[in-house]
Amino acid sequence: MSADLTRLLDAVRPADTDALAAAAARQARLAKPSGSLGALEDVATRLAGSAGQCPPPLPAPAAVAVFAGDHGVHARGVTPWPQAVTAQMVAALAAGGAVVNALARQVEAPVVVVDVGVASGAVPVGVLDRRVRAGTADLSRGPAMRREEAVEAVLVGAQVARDLVDDGCRLLVAGDMGIANTTPAAALVCAFTGGDPVAATGRGTGVDDVVLAHKVDVVREALALHRPDRADPVGVLAAVGGLEHAAIAGFLLQAAASRVPAVLDGVIACSAALVAREMAPAAADHWVAGHLSAEPGAALALAHLGLRPLLDLGMRLGEGSGAVLAVPLVQAAARILTEVATLDDAAVTDLPAAPTVRR
Amino acid sequence: MSADLTRLLDAVRPADTDALAAAAARQARLAKPSGSLGALEDVATRLAGSAGQCPPPLPAPAAVAVFAGDHGVHARGVTPWPQAVTAQMVAALAAGGAVVNALARQVEAPVVVVDVGVASGAVPVGVLDRRVRAGTADLSRGPAMRREEAVEAVLVGAQVARDLVDDGCRLLVAGDMGIANTTPAAALVCAFTGGDPVAATGRGTGVDDVVLAHKVDVVREALALHRPDRADPVGVLAAVGGLEHAAIAGFLLQAAASRVPAVLDGVIACSAALVAREMAPAAADHWVAGHLSAEPGAALALAHLGLRPLLDLGMRLGEGSGAVLAVPLVQAAARILTEVATLDDAAVTDLPAAPTVRR
Repeated sequence: MSADLTRLLDAVRPADTDALAAAAARQARLAKPSGSLGALEDVATRLAGSAGQCPPPLPAPAAVAVFAGDHGVHARGVTPWPQAVTAQMVAALAAGGAVVNALARQVEAPVVVVDVGVASGAVPVGVLDRRVRAGTADLSRGPAMRREEAVEAVLVGAQVARDLVDDGCRLLVAGDMGIANTTPAAALVCAFTGGDPVAATGRGTGVDDVVLAHKVDVVREALALHRPDRADPVGVLAAVGGLEHAAIAGFLLQAAASRVPAVLDGVIACSAALVAREMAPAAADHWVAGHLSAEPGAALALAHLGLRPLLDLGMRLGEGSGAVLAVPLVQAAARILTEVATLDDAAVTDLPAAPTVRR
Repeated sequence: MSADLTRLLDAVRPADTDALAAAAARQARLAKPSGSLGALEDVATRLAGSAGQCPPPLPAPAAVAVFAGDHGVHARGVTPWPQAVTAQMVAALAAGGAVVNALARQVEAPVVVVDVGVASGAVPVGVLDRRVRAGTADLSRGPAMRREEAVEAVLVGAQVARDLVDDGCRLLVAGDMGIANTTPAAALVCAFTGGDPVAATGRGTGVDDVVLAHKVDVVREALALHRPDRADPVGVLAAVGGLEHAAIAGFLLQAAASRVPAVLDGVIACSAALVAREMAPAAADHWVAGHLSAEPGAALALAHLGLRPLLDLGMRLGEGSGAVLAVPLVQAAARILTEVATLDDAAVTDLPAAPTVRR
């Protein structure tokens, strides 16, 4: 393993138990019925644990990095969309016209677009050129990439996160763009969760039953060919992953190492999170699940990670779109611990220990 | 019925069908797979229908009005919290220390606190004094209020909404504060949906099984006493409602009349929405369900209204807290129609009519 990767993994530390305990104690004294904020309370506690302080700092501003790559497995017909759409959408992202650009404006987050492995064409102006290779090889016929390339892509993602943190960003979102990228995501989910390809493989952009069945077969072939060993996450990435999946894994690892929370998006980010957690188990303490994608591998991955998604809107777009929508919820959760008065502060009568019920 | 109320109801118009059709057509041409934004697409379409234009204007800034009242049924022991907590929390809301204040800061929405019927004490500085009466009477022994008082409270809520719209607010959220107010909410839900008190009555702030069973009995007694007729919504409000429920109904009606979308909060707002929709059925075209409260009456009410909640975080606080969290989602939905490029604009290759699946 590269020295840089070792350094990254060594820098990942678990949640601070004192801050977690302080957050739980503080929530019990706030001017509200106990437990009445549901999942928002869990997020607030996680933020305190990640930051190592209670109340945690407001996780703002947020920033979005969209990692783009192409996939040799596209040749197997796992999607009806032409591969050229990846490059076209990268240009749309750079021009600010994609969905995630619109959603990110709502949460005042800049969008950085990173070409980590688009197959063709020049890298457009406004896109970070971090192309490790021009798309992966067909993972159903051989390894998607070399181990060194997987590591390089992981480090690309980590560097993007480090630069955003250095620029003052305090909440990180990773998005993806890559025609056919739900196929490697499904293979990664199977490799790390032990799930069956039938359960982990979805319709992606909306393929029909025939293509879906074929996609399941392709994932099954790839797993039979590579027999991925989850204890070797770099090997799994190289065998059945994608360049954007690798970069997002690195991005999530660096967020954890920097103790800056990251919001997970859909199946691409969740599959990358499985890789990252295998590399550094404590990293997951610094992540919040933004939404439940309609792509079935996302639910499998989140269950394996032990994370409960904040949103369930039936979205399946990628680009980081679901995670971006969760950004204000995460920021609001921090405000609960920072800005809400305690029962004492507000001079609100606490619940009596033995309430009187009059009939 | 008062002339003012008649005028308000007459001003409510349904969604604009041309704008609805234009929104659906535009979504089909955006640079994204069809249907990939799930519930967000439905919200975007609703906003266009409510505004009567496509794309709809950005529903911003938002504003929150928290209506506070007390409840004579508190004397029946339906909650262990002392009634004085209503006034204490009104003071906390005015001071900016309640949960909804923190959440509203996140979405840059001012919070207006309106005393429409607190039982005791002076109205604190910073709270709008619109007290119709000092709390309702015990709805399990007689009418909660007179019909004229119910109408007056409805008009208070409408006036608050009108003032916010005049001030430039373009997304309205109604919150509530009132110890014991889930009991009248449950009664309203039963009256309008035909639901059984066992299904519609919840734990509110978190009462135990004994108090919950008693609360169900109290709701059942009230329904048996008044036999509310849903075709007479003012009569239902007067019999088993609350002053804040009435005010929120008026607030929601005025939002609809002004063609400014309103976000529904939990069971109090949803029960008020049932009243408002009975008064003016088209009003519901202008509302978005912000979240699914853990209080069971909320789900019954939303199903009856045909609205799907955006969030399901297990929250049960009131104050408008769940709806406020949904504000950025609603605003983001509008941006989909306004800011996302079409496939043509972005020069993205459309899905071929007959995709080739290569094996």
